[in-house]
Order: sequence, then structure tokens, then C-alpha cells
Amino acid sequence: MAKEITARADDYSQWYIDIVKKAGLADNSAVRGCMVIKPHGFAIWENMRDQLDRMFKETGHVNAYFPLFIPKSFLSKEAEHVEGFAKECAVVTHHRLMNDPNGNGVVVDPEAKLEEELIVRPTSETIIWNTYRDWINSYRDLPLLINQWANVVRWEMRTRLFLRTAEFLWQEGHTAHATKAEAVEETLKILDIYARFAEEYMAMPVLKGVKTINERFAGAEDTYCIEALMQDGKALQAGTSHFLGQNFAKAFEVKFQNENNEEEFVWATSWGVSTRLMGGLVMTHSDDDGLIIPPKLAPMQVVIVPIPKPNEVIGEVAEKIMRALRDKGISVQYDRDMTKRPGFKFAEYELKGIPVRLGLGQRDIENGQVEVARRDTKEKSSVPLDGVADYVEKLLAEIQQNLYQRAYDYRTEHTTRVDSFEEFNEVLDGKGGFVEAHWDGTTETELQIKELTKATIRCIPIDGEEEAGKCVLSGKPSKQRVVFARAY
Amino acid sequence: MAKEITARADDYSQWYIDIVKKAGLADNSAVRGCMVIKPHGFAIWENMRDQLDRMFKETGHVNAYFPLFIPKSFLSKEAEHVEGFAKECAVVTHHRLMNDPNGNGVVVDPEAKLEEELIVRPTSETIIWNTYRDWINSYRDLPLLINQWANVVRWEMRTRLFLRTAEFLWQEGHTAHATKAEAVEETLKILDIYARFAEEYMAMPVLKGVKTINERFAGAEDTYCIEALMQDGKALQAGTSHFLGQNFAKAFEVKFQNENNEEEFVWATSWGVSTRLMGGLVMTHSDDDGLIIPPKLAPMQVVIVPIPKPNEVIGEVAEKIMRALRDKGISVQYDRDMTKRPGFKFAEYELKGIPVRLGLGQRDIENGQVEVARRDTKEKSSVPLDGVADYVEKLLAEIQQNLYQRAYDYRTEHTTRVDSFEEFNEVLDGKGGFVEAHWDGTTETELQIKELTKATIRCIPIDGEEEAGKCVLSGKPSKQRVVFARAY
Repeated sequence: MAKEITARADDYSQWYIDIVKKAGLADNSAVRGCMVIKPHGFAIWENMRDQLDRMFKETGHVNAYFPLFIPKSFLSKEAEHVEGFAKECAVVTHHRLMNDPNGNGVVVDPEAKLEEELIVRPTSETIIWNTYRDWINSYRDLPLLINQWANVVRWEMRTRLFLRTAEFLWQEGHTAHATKAEAVEETLKILDIYARFAEEYMAMPVLKGVKTINERFAGAEDTYCIEALMQDGKALQAGTSHFLGQNFAKAFEVKFQNENNEEEFVWATSWGVSTRLMGGLVMTHSDDDGLIIPPKLAPMQVVIVPIPKPNEVIGEVAEKIMRALRDKGISVQYDRDMTKRPGFKFAEYELKGIPVRLGLGQRDIENGQVEVARRDTKEKSSVPLDGVADYVEKLLAEIQQNLYQRAYDYRTEHTTRVDSFEEFNEVLDGKGGFVEAHWDGTTETELQIKELTKATIRCIPIDGEEEAGKCVLSGKPSKQRVVFARAY
Repeated sequence: MAKEITARADDYSQWYIDIVKKAGLADNSAVRGCMVIKPHGFAIWENMRDQLDRMFKETGHVNAYFPLFIPKSFLSKEAEHVEGFAKECAVVTHHRLMNDPNGNGVVVDPEAKLEEELIVRPTSETIIWNTYRDWINSYRDLPLLINQWANVVRWEMRTRLFLRTAEFLWQEGHTAHATKAEAVEETLKILDIYARFAEEYMAMPVLKGVKTINERFAGAEDTYCIEALMQDGKALQAGTSHFLGQNFAKAFEVKFQNENNEEEFVWATSWGVSTRLMGGLVMTHSDDDGLIIPPKLAPMQVVIVPIPKPNEVIGEVAEKIMRALRDKGISVQYDRDMTKRPGFKFAEYELKGIPVRLGLGQRDIENGQVEVARRDTKEKSSVPLDGVADYVEKLLAEIQQNLYQRAYDYRTEHTTRVDSFEEFNEVLDGKGGFVEAHWDGTTETELQIKELTKATIRCIPIDGEEEAGKCVLSGKPSKQRVVFARAY
């Protein structure tokens, strides 16, 4: 099974597709650009969703649900927003099919044309701010801290499972505030939640920063982001948090009476992460044998494989181990399959990324031992049966930490300060990764660098030091380094 | 606040809309027939979803996600299915907008017409069975026990919040089996889960039965259902579980190799419940003062209101009570608002359906007491502070039980055996409810009764006794009574 996976060194792109398909995460569907998320992939996504949902709720957010469709005219109300999103989207024009008069299945009923076309939401700022107009009258109605878990559609030309699909799943937060300061604070609070989630749960180190004007969300005053580095030296934007100013409030006339009885426009934020994170998870940790899932997000953290096959004695010991593990909140399954051989099963669980595997044979039991294999390093060790649950609990924490450290070290090795354009190119074409360089702050230079090198400014780091320097391309003065990379 | 709710006796329909809107459950949106589910409503739906999800997972089901869009041609592959669902649906015909050459916002780009139209899923049998063809080869791949939580769209002409909306949220299970017997067993297993969920969590008694041919799901061999009775004597179909035979396997050519190496078509089931359950919840329990939520589904089970307003002493006692309640897994909040009066707050929490309210004043504390008000009966009693958590825990269980009993008694009083068509009409136009009557088994009679009385056959009860009788309309022989009602 595992042998069918293309090696990363041979073709990184194909390796990624192989992992996603063969580990049972997702597959292409009959609908162009839309994927099927398979049970194993969906179980990981559920764990991500549930943890993020807890973090949002702990910080006072509540969930709601807004319509899938957006009237076409709504999109035009915020000038920049329409430029960013109206281009490629799914347009509903009719509400009925009828039998083909020529007898070939069904056709669109021309009588059932909608008066105004509906757009399948690419993001929901417009429909939500149109609703907020009715919900907000006074400062007492603020803040509104609302999140929605939903599917959205953007008609992408080139798609890749999880990383860029026409339909994807995400959460989108949309908050409303009485003051600019409070909205900015919210934007940054969410950025911190995203970063904490990426690092503590996905074991994926991220840079926090702000986007350049050119890379901003259409309709935002400022777009903050978390940026991760994949194993092939390319960057992945993993989440964004937007300070929207009063743009959508003005477009949809959402005003409130402040404490002095004056009318003001409401301040807004929006923020989202999506099933794209699944792609980031795969490309941060997995290897040529298959998927590697950080223990905190693994649907099955431990599997017990009987050697060479299930029998009553092994079954009883396995039950005992499972009880002890479950008491600690660790998810575990016992492989009762009688037909496949241990070697086949081992490869299968490696492919699926199960963090810890216990191999349990009759002789092990006689010796009071069990073989413990960790997925991240593939090390095996014999461990006394007595106290194996404690051992596994510590091991899971160690694996979680090791995955983070490994990714962190990779990023450190692949982050390079450069001070000339020659060096800039050398690094990009060589080891790749993040390049810290001076930039003169103009969109013109940014686009020129992109055209020459295919690298974009991933972000202006939030905690970057001030440092006088010269733009790597134009030679003009700069006050802070920014982070470039080729990106997904 | 509560005074603005129309009384049930005056206008049941308006009462329902008032509760849904004013208790903060849902509202209409700018998109025809699509609703906004507001935070309080969504929190209740989340509790329903999470409990159902646990019940599905405990019985071996896993979640996955399939595309929002269905190629038009897929709908025509199952002959009855297309008749049932192709009629009223949202049709995507284009994938791009462009700036209006006349300068009026955006218009559909005629160049971006799709080769084949896409339908926004009204239900997912077709796209899922098209996928299963790739997933199923051998009996070893079976059963597939997959569920999906998703939004679906049916272009309903007359809509009503939660009960009938163009877009709604639901779960749809789609299972694949090697034998007919196993698929039938699955269909009934799910029906039992639905009934158990409705009765134990929603406190809503349901009849389990099978639909007549005329009321069957388009493409099913048998449709099983749970049917509830609302306070106005009308029935609500609350969930359906379909045995699909081999219809979809044949339409999408899904075959498997059985243990004897013979090719066979796969057997199928599908089953779903939706946000319609929210409407059922409202109409089963609520009263003229507002919503009533069964404790097991209440996002906030207990609220503590300081009398007349928060102070340090009350705050400390409230903290202690909250800790004791939370230790028991009971959700509770303390109302820290300084501006509103207790009477206003009481009405507000009654409107929102919070099961238990504690009124806590300085004098109560001096007397070692707290006032406990239950939402279902509106009874109040003074309870010793010492041990109040135990008291509340028992009270919540009692409320849950009382709500079920009240609904059960209502249903018993509104279930009538009739043996003549005159009686049949009298009951329907009088007290309403379920009418148990003999029917000759023909669609013709069924439709005639519907036309004459607006009553439909809700189901043929699953555990109905055999009883010889004569059809209430045609006088022809019948072997079992069926259940009629006017329905939502």
C-alpha cells in the first residue's frame, strides 16, 4: 500500500495528492473543482472544528447561520469587495427544471427565471451586514460576536484537494463594534487564537503578520494573517483576520446610537480558516510512508494490532489496555480483522497516520511486554505491560512536541536574511523558504519582484524589529524587513 | 416583551412566528424563503445535532462531506427521484459576473455559461451513489455507514420559518449493504434512533410508522417516519428513514462481488432529520409567554437573577451556586446587567425558554434561601441555599419528564378512533389530532379523502394491531387502522 506513494524527492505535488487520496482524506468528485471529504479526513476536520469552536466560545463568540445565497445587487454595494469576489462565482439564474420536450432527461424551465440572480456565497460579509442593519440600533446591541460554520464557493480555475477547491468548508466570524479600537483588538485577538490553534494543535509553527495593501482582503482596511512553511519550502497562508473599518457598515447603512445619543457607523471585523488547513497539516508533517497526524487532532490516537492475529488471550489484554487508555481520554481501537497480516496492517496504519501503534503477541504477554511504535520517528520499543497507559500518554505528548519542534527547526533552517537581489534569487531557487528582505513599501516594487521571482510578500511581521535598510530591488530606503516566499 | 406575543387561541400561526422571532430563534432574510438562524436558535440546534451525532457514531456511523452541486444529468438517472426533486430547485447556469457595460453594478457574463447546469442539492442520493461506485468493489467494502451534516435547497413556494424553508440544515445518512435484510434492519435501527431522540431529548412523543406508496420518498421502496402532534392538532413529520432497495445502485451501476464471487447490486438506505425539528420543538411545548426548551436541549439550563440588582454579596453566593451546578454538568449563567429590572429580566428569560430561574436577593441570603421558578409550570418555591444544586438537578429531570408527559397526554386526548366518515370529519373539524381509521389500501381513496378533508395518511403504525374493518370512505375491507391527520 504505502509503496504506491510517490516520494517527496521525486515529485512533491504528486506525493501530496497520493497522501490525500490514499490515506482516505479526500477525493475529486464528479463536479469540477469540488471535492469529497472522506470519513478519515472528515474526522480530522471535525477535531479541528471542535477545538476552534471551543476557543471561539471561550472568548465570547456565538454561532449563527446565514443564507447560502446572496442577491447579486448586494455584491456591488462595497466597491472593492465586488472587484475581489464577483468575478468567479456560481450564479443561480433559475428555480425549476422540466422534462425535456425532446425526451432527453430534464432541462432548465425558461419560465422559471429569477428576477434577480443569486450568487452562492463566496464569503458572507454582504448578506450578514445587510442583516445586522436590523439587529443593531444602540451601543447596547454591541458588540456582536458571531461566527458561522459553512460551505462557500469560489470558481477557481486550477484546483487542488483541500488547498484550493471550488467549494470548501470554513468558519467565518463577523463581529460588530462601537469603536475602532475595540474592532482592532478583536482582529488581533482572533489572530492569536489562530496562531495558538496552529501551533498547539496542528503542531504547525506560524508567522503572524499583516498583509500589504496589494494582498489585502477585498473590502478590508487591514488584513492580518498566519503564514506557515511547507516541507517543499513554499509558504501557505493558513488563516486571515480582517479589520474592515466602517466599509461594510457604510455600504449597508448600519448605524448605532452611541452613549451620547449620536449616530455613528458600526466598526467591523471578519476572519476565517478553512479546510485548507487540512492541506497544511499534511504538508507540514507527513512523510513518504503516509500521513502523520499530531496526536491532539488524531481521531484514533492509538491502535492495538494483535500478532499474528486476534485470539482470546490477546483480546483480554487489549481490553485492559483500552480501558486504561480511555480512562485517560485517549482514543484507541483494537484491530479484530482476521484476514490481513500484521505487516499489511502496520503499513495501513502508518499510511493513515495513527500516532501510536501497539503490537501485542502471545509471547509479549508471557514476557509482560508490548511493542510500542511511534509514527513520527518510526522508533519501536518494548515496554512493560504494567503501566503502558502512562507510557503511551507521555509518548503522545512527546510526539505532539516533537512534530512541532521538527517543523520549527525546518522553518528556522529555511528562513534566510538577504540583502541583495542576487542572494534573494539564489535562496528562492535553492533551498527556498522564507526570505527576510527590505522592501521600499510600494506596490510597484512588490509586483515587480513577484513577476521576476514568483515570490510574494507573505506578511509584514507583527513583532518585526525596526531596522534601517535598502529595498532589495529598488535600493530605496526601508524601515523593516518583510517576509517573502513562493506560496500555495 | 412577552406581551407582544399573539395568544395561541387567537392565531396559532402568528403565535408560532412570534415565538420564533421574538425568542431569537430565527428570522426571514433578504433571500426569498431562506432564513437566518439566530444565535439562541442555533445553540439549540447545535445541541440537537451533537446528540444525534453521538447516537449515529455509537451505532457505527461516520461523517463525510459530498459536493453542494449535482450535475443536472445525475437527477434523471433514477426515474422516480427526478419526478420528486427536479421540479423546484436552484439551478446554477453560469460561473462568472462582470461589470455591467451600462454601468449598473454587475451582470451575468454570458461567456461564462456552464456546459452542464448544476443543481444545488435538494438531497444527495445521486452524487453519493455516483461516488460509491468507486468505493465499493467487494463485500469486504460493505457496509458503508456514512452520514453528512449539510445544507440543502428546495425551492418551496410557501415557506415558514424552520417548518418549510428554501434552504435548510439537516443530516442525511446514506448507507450501502450487501443484503436486503441488513439494509431493512438499518432503516429500522435509524427510525428507532430518531424516535428515541425525539422522545428522550425533545420530550416530543412520536408515532413510528411506514408511509403509503403515495407519500413515499421519490426513489424509495419503503419510507418509515416518525410523526408528532402539535398543540393545534396538526401533525408534523419529524424524520424519515428510507429503504431504497437497489434503485440507486442500479441507476449508478454500483455492484459488488459477494462471498461467492458473484456480482450483485448494492442495497441502500437513506435517512434524515432537519432544522424542521426546531419548529416541532416550539410547537410541542411553548406557551403564550414564550418558548419552552426541554432541559436536555437548553443551551442555558439555569439563570440566576440578582434581586433587585447585582451586588458583591449576591455575586459571591451566585458564584458558589454556579460552581456547584457546573460540577454536575449543568449550564448556568448569572445576570450581571445593572440597568434592567428583575420583572423585565424574568419576562425575557421566560420568552427565551430557560428551564429554571433562580431569584436571589440579599434577604433570601440572610434567610439561607433562594427562589426557584420553573419555566414549564411557572411555579415558584423557596428552597434552602444549602443543597440547592441537588434540588435543581432533580428539578431539571422533573421538567424534562413533565414536558414529555404533558405532550403525551395531549396526544392521547387528541387521538380518536372513528368508524364512519361523518365522525372522521367531525373530529378533524373539532378537536383535530390523529384519527385512527380503516382505509382500503388504495391511492385513489387516499387522495379522495385528502381532497375532501385536507387530511393525509400520516403513517401505517409499525406496531399496529391487525383488526378487520371497513374503509371509512369506500366501505371496502381493511386489515389495519391507519393514522390520518391534517399536517404541516
